[in-house]
Amino acid sequence: MASISKLVTQHRPELTEYLELYQYFHANPELSNQEHETAAHIAKHLKEKISSEFDVRTGIGGTGIAALLFNGEGPTVLLRADIDALPVEERTGLPYASKKRMKDADGVEKPVMHACGHDMHITSLLAAAELLVSAKSDWSGTLLLAFQPAEERGTGARAMVDDGMYSPEKHAVPIPDICLGGHVMPHRAGVLGTRRGLAATSADSMRITLHGRGGHASQPHHLIDPVVMAASTILKLQTIVSREIDPSEHTVVTVASIQAGDAENIIVDDARIALDVRTSNAATREKVKRSIKRIVDAEARAANAVKEPTYLVTRNFPLTINDDEVTARLEQTFRAHFPEDEHNYTADIPMLGGSEDFSILATAVGKPYCFFMYGGTPQEVWDRCEAAGTLGEEVPINHSGLFYPAMMPTLRVAVDAYAAGALTWLAKK
Amino acid sequence: MASISKLVTQHRPELTEYLELYQYFHANPELSNQEHETAAHIAKHLKEKISSEFDVRTGIGGTGIAALLFNGEGPTVLLRADIDALPVEERTGLPYASKKRMKDADGVEKPVMHACGHDMHITSLLAAAELLVSAKSDWSGTLLLAFQPAEERGTGARAMVDDGMYSPEKHAVPIPDICLGGHVMPHRAGVLGTRRGLAATSADSMRITLHGRGGHASQPHHLIDPVVMAASTILKLQTIVSREIDPSEHTVVTVASIQAGDAENIIVDDARIALDVRTSNAATREKVKRSIKRIVDAEARAANAVKEPTYLVTRNFPLTINDDEVTARLEQTFRAHFPEDEHNYTADIPMLGGSEDFSILATAVGKPYCFFMYGGTPQEVWDRCEAAGTLGEEVPINHSGLFYPAMMPTLRVAVDAYAAGALTWLAKK
Amino acid sequence: MASISKLVTQHRPELTEYLELYQYFHANPELSNQEHETAAHIAKHLKEKISSEFDVRTGIGGTGIAALLFNGEGPTVLLRADIDALPVEERTGLPYASKKRMKDADGVEKPVMHACGHDMHITSLLAAAELLVSAKSDWSGTLLLAFQPAEERGTGARAMVDDGMYSPEKHAVPIPDICLGGHVMPHRAGVLGTRRGLAATSADSMRITLHGRGGHASQPHHLIDPVVMAASTILKLQTIVSREIDPSEHTVVTVASIQAGDAENIIVDDARIALDVRTSNAATREKVKRSIKRIVDAEARAANAVKEPTYLVTRNFPLTINDDEVTARLEQTFRAHFPEDEHNYTADIPMLGGSEDFSILATAVGKPYCFFMYGGTPQEVWDRCEAAGTLGEEVPINHSGLFYPAMMPTLRVAVDAYAAGALTWLAKK
Amino acid sequence: MASISKLVTQHRPELTEYLELYQYFHANPELSNQEHETAAHIAKHLKEKISSEFDVRTGIGGTGIAALLFNGEGPTVLLRADIDALPVEERTGLPYASKKRMKDADGVEKPVMHACGHDMHITSLLAAAELLVSAKSDWSGTLLLAFQPAEERGTGARAMVDDGMYSPEKHAVPIPDICLGGHVMPHRAGVLGTRRGLAATSADSMRITLHGRGGHASQPHHLIDPVVMAASTILKLQTIVSREIDPSEHTVVTVASIQAGDAENIIVDDARIALDVRTSNAATREKVKRSIKRIVDAEARAANAVKEPTYLVTRNFPLTINDDEVTARLEQTFRAHFPEDEHNYTADIPMLGGSEDFSILATAVGKPYCFFMYGGTPQEVWDRCEAAGTLGEEVPINHSGLFYPAMMPTLRVAVDAYAAGALTWLAKK
Repeated sequence: MASISKLVTQHRPELTEYLELYQYFHANPELSNQEHETAAHIAKHLKEKISSEFDVRTGIGGTGIAALLFNGEGPTVLLRADIDALPVEERTGLPYASKKRMKDADGVEKPVMHACGHDMHITSLLAAAELLVSAKSDWSGTLLLAFQPAEERGTGARAMVDDGMYSPEKHAVPIPDICLGGHVMPHRAGVLGTRRGLAATSADSMRITLHGRGGHASQPHHLIDPVVMAASTILKLQTIVSREIDPSEHTVVTVASIQAGDAENIIVDDARIALDVRTSNAATREKVKRSIKRIVDAEARAANAVKEPTYLVTRNFPLTINDDEVTARLEQTFRAHFPEDEHNYTADIPMLGGSEDFSILATAVGKPYCFFMYGGTPQEVWDRCEAAGTLGEEVPINHSGLFYPAMMPTLRVAVDAYAAGALTWLAKK
Repeated sequence: MASISKLVTQHRPELTEYLELYQYFHANPELSNQEHETAAHIAKHLKEKISSEFDVRTGIGGTGIAALLFNGEGPTVLLRADIDALPVEERTGLPYASKKRMKDADGVEKPVMHACGHDMHITSLLAAAELLVSAKSDWSGTLLLAFQPAEERGTGARAMVDDGMYSPEKHAVPIPDICLGGHVMPHRAGVLGTRRGLAATSADSMRITLHGRGGHASQPHHLIDPVVMAASTILKLQTIVSREIDPSEHTVVTVASIQAGDAENIIVDDARIALDVRTSNAATREKVKRSIKRIVDAEARAANAVKEPTYLVTRNFPLTINDDEVTARLEQTFRAHFPEDEHNYTADIPMLGGSEDFSILATAVGKPYCFFMYGGTPQEVWDRCEAAGTLGEEVPINHSGLFYPAMMPTLRVAVDAYAAGALTWLAKK
Repeated sequence: MASISKLVTQHRPELTEYLELYQYFHANPELSNQEHETAAHIAKHLKEKISSEFDVRTGIGGTGIAALLFNGEGPTVLLRADIDALPVEERTGLPYASKKRMKDADGVEKPVMHACGHDMHITSLLAAAELLVSAKSDWSGTLLLAFQPAEERGTGARAMVDDGMYSPEKHAVPIPDICLGGHVMPHRAGVLGTRRGLAATSADSMRITLHGRGGHASQPHHLIDPVVMAASTILKLQTIVSREIDPSEHTVVTVASIQAGDAENIIVDDARIALDVRTSNAATREKVKRSIKRIVDAEARAANAVKEPTYLVTRNFPLTINDDEVTARLEQTFRAHFPEDEHNYTADIPMLGGSEDFSILATAVGKPYCFFMYGGTPQEVWDRCEAAGTLGEEVPINHSGLFYPAMMPTLRVAVDAYAAGALTWLAKK
Repeated sequence: MASISKLVTQHRPELTEYLELYQYFHANPELSNQEHETAAHIAKHLKEKISSEFDVRTGIGGTGIAALLFNGEGPTVLLRADIDALPVEERTGLPYASKKRMKDADGVEKPVMHACGHDMHITSLLAAAELLVSAKSDWSGTLLLAFQPAEERGTGARAMVDDGMYSPEKHAVPIPDICLGGHVMPHRAGVLGTRRGLAATSADSMRITLHGRGGHASQPHHLIDPVVMAASTILKLQTIVSREIDPSEHTVVTVASIQAGDAENIIVDDARIALDVRTSNAATREKVKRSIKRIVDAEARAANAVKEPTYLVTRNFPLTINDDEVTARLEQTFRAHFPEDEHNYTADIPMLGGSEDFSILATAVGKPYCFFMYGGTPQEVWDRCEAAGTLGEEVPINHSGLFYPAMMPTLRVAVDAYAAGALTWLAKK
């Protein structure tokens, strides 16, 4: 049999068309849960441009799509791309930059941008689909493409599952044996990486209101100062990472914002802080949440707060922990396909900076998964910053208005990774 | 000669009309530096309702008025009322409550309310003027009524002086020998008080921006966190009062507000804090300002700030320090006129909660002054709260949307205080 | 009748002998509750050098003495001097400097010094006694000299009272109508002062242990860090004065010491902090104590302490609040006797820097009192520091190893103040 | 050729004698740089009990020993054991517990205990030496045993090198091709582990004095409070780990102790804090040191310190980073020798909790090394605590007065690890 690498090289479609498709998606981003045109475009491309054989099931968990290609006996492999964009103003100056504005969930109009690279995810998965259709006679099994909405809110994968994606009575998507996903990240374009175990931390966001009693700035003794209460709380929260958590674990507790009043001489009743928490295992995740509660409650008591703090959980992302066995097989495939060069495949890529809800598509049905990452930073930018020691400062990261992947070789690497990944389990032996 | 007390009682006008006038002013408040209708109404009342003899000079420092009554040989006594209102939404439920909205200096529409009692100041000074006109044959000298704008911003008195109020080439108002002012405060209505020395602290407001470098909440090591920088700064600023200043001195350093970002997962570049400082002498005032600068600068350095903090001074109020001799003479007059009862005159009233720019009208020309205070809290409210030990919590204070003086006896006390105060120097012996 | 001032001047003993006596006491200080030789010397001087008429009752509350001179009808006036010294090493370099060392209450040997001027108190009260004995025919009533031990611990006055000083069954000392006490302070020698109302704050000392769980410095997650717990507690305690207490009130909350471990790599279980609290009224005193408890308990909870903090109250001094009427009469006497000069008597001397238990001798029997203060700083030192603006930094204060009063005119002022004070009530009219 | 595992099993000496030797060392611990009897005992055992062929060079860097066995052509393998004990009071209650007391470097008498297991290191290395002598005909090369003093102070390895251990003119010890060391740790007895890369963090200790100006607790405005200065500094130092360092890196900044004054009412001039820093790479190590300096200096400025803080570096331990290739070869040997069982060999043992200066013996001559770890916790203790989820709290860790390894199987594992490790390079193929 031909090797996976040969199949990929042989059947990879001409990417010029897909570069145009990428620019279309980039210029037409849509906010989470509003990816209607994006989903329609994906479905149309699959059926009309690639193959009418695709069984495209839309509207799963809102705008989610599961596209199935049944190709005989064999395992089911899920390949996932997320499809939503962000309320970020694009500042790349690209010819195909987004000028889109949309109303967000609260009805507030926002600039919209594919600032997290999901346009690249969609495009490369479609190209990989075309590749796999072309290579159909060399593999056997079921290909399951999942185009997932609302990844940015951490709700899209859960919504697809909860909407009955895998339910025989509802969308009846076959349960995958293996799930694969990928993400473009601020790394040299052309690099592909996997890692065993933790690939992305969990993420938990919350808003906390601390309740004081406002008044005139000249009368501190007649009020309960929410500003000092919040300041002390913020400082004390630093001790969770510095004192309570195993220093070997990747843990972040960030107070990302604080709002309390605006005037110079009037103290308002309440201070509002917003937190972001990242952890690398379930036990620590629970411990950190308990510590936050303990500290915030106690600080409120110390400050004589008029009532207990109010907590509002706003987002949750699960841990992304790559399965050792699945990852080991991918390692073999990727090592074989990508040129041996430190600038290409690595089995020890750094963790994703952010968090991901991809794993829910697998864990909801108890299946193993691997999430791979690939660089998108233009090589000359990377080289210059690496030489200057400014990688951390100068390379635009996901969610920045300046973030964009170099279209090539990023697209090729992503297409090959999806396709070679799927073939790892589907290719005929 | 008739005693001052007799003159006051005899010539005090019927106050019913002035209660109506008070309600007019209360219902028609105007923001600082926009007191056009208020000033016009005052000028008209003086000339048309009281006496055409008044030499009314308008437009001093914007909307300020100096009204002069020349009445023979003798000293010049300045009586001052401030005339501006506040961007506060009235919640008193009074039949004459304000429903006014105005654009503030930044063009933002705001609710407007006489939440600091300046309506009572204006009304009582006008009634006192009528009283003094009526008693004209019993006194000799020059009466100078100063209706001052923009007290709330701490700029009105300075503006009047800087606009040439006392300048022979400009408004040519005669230099007063003595300046008297008064203020309604949250104390039992009917109470009048003076105090020697410090009557109101200085007030200095500033806005400080702390400069970090924002980024994603999951990447603390790639950013300079302005939230933690601000939190630590706020806590450290507490030590000025707790450690650096003589505990015998009335000193307040309040961080009244903080603003840094709004999202849960994005840290912005800067944190903005707003400070309010109160001191009771000039040396401490300078020391506190130096300490704030030292601490904020050092905290920025400790936090590795990308640049030095930015300081913007937004308001300054001088110290109000009553002249011993002037106050001693007022004490005699007030003791003689007000019934001997702890609920009436006291020479030991607490300091004003806020600050005042009144003294500038005197210190600008090197003259002594006394600032008296009188209660406005309805007696039954005061009694109830005093019994319940909730005076500090329940009695609405100046600047509250619930603050209003009981019209009577507050108005009578204020009228008498102004008139008797002036007669202390003007009455024929 | 001769004026009080004349009586004082006429009967004042030759002070040369008393200067020697002062040097004796200075060179022979004794720690609190161990003032055996001091007390013996006082008793002997009274009986043998001054007058055998003195009814000297010793051993009251340990080493306390009440010496009575019955001189006919009239009020009883108590004059008090405290007699204990401090565990301070003398560094004055005076020829009569103390070289004394004694074991303290814990059996630890300490250097001992009259670093608070009680030697001056004793000496001047003895000289005043001689003066009053000499002037005996000009006054009538009962003179009651109280030589009180253990003022530095705040326990001596309470011990005398509790030991039955005023109890008919025990020491049967007649209840005084008026109590007077005095203290030398860091002010220009020659100055005498009184003040109405608050003369000295209350003082409360406590030791608090914060309970963590120690361990190796490299394993923060396996321990509960008492160092960070204490640090946060200390910072939060600053907010009592800065935020909770009326800024008009003299209030101090000092964390005077902290002890937690000693090694660089081992964290111990507990941190110990010691607090000193000063307030100027009973309500605030209670409020501050409650706030300390609230904050320390909550900080322990925030830090996940293994158990609640342990509190140990170590000292309490009452408020010293001079009676208005008693003080008014003293004002008259002192104004008449001391030359009219700003460098002499003032009715508005600053509060005592420290605290005092003198008032207990009066409040225990419901009697009014006045506590006066006089300067001891050599005049040239004061002048130099005043000119240099370094009074706060350079003038040695009570409890310093460098503190000593200029013997003259300090002694004369103190003698006259005691004697004239007593005669204010005792002198025949 | 016989496999390494067979050689080890065949030539391993009867361990009963070595259990007695272990108990001897345990009962006779000596503090760092005073290991005279220990060193003498080691040298004697080598020469007299094992083989007179050993070329034992003593007194290297104080009490250090290099023992050489030249056995033909081949590489030189260094096996290292550290030999010093700790100033810890033994509380194990073992029959062979230490009752030793010694004067430390400052002349203060201290209890002494092998609380870090170096007694096990010595004993197992001696037994391994006997094994290797027995197996001499099966291997070829040079065996170099390094018995290193003063590991606890981080100075012993450096001292041996600096004293000319490898210098041809001085001790002329042949430069090893590979260095191996091991450590007993709180893990199940019987477990042996290696890990690639970071095996132990760096450790830097320092003492910092913050300079305030003391005074009386009642006069905060006359002093510069070192207690609050230190408290704020301690809290701010928490932000290095929580905000400045990559959360993926194992980094610890501990303020292990603080000392400032002792009284309740006297504030001393200075506060002393002691820090312990652990990092996992050189760049972060430097960054953390710079951040500490920046924060402490700035906090001193914020607090208006009378002078810059004083820094004293007290200890430095290098990073221990196992060489990938050396470790890979050890992995093979250990996998082959130790039974396949999760309770035995693991290539992914957790990092050492503490730090080590072992690597200096290798890095000083630019050679690769591997540091392995093995458990010593009695199995039943481990099982019980693991079941109860109290491993972190209940298992005594190194430096605890309760720490001791289960003699067996710990000794056997350690002997085998040393011997098999050496044979990995020395065994004849």
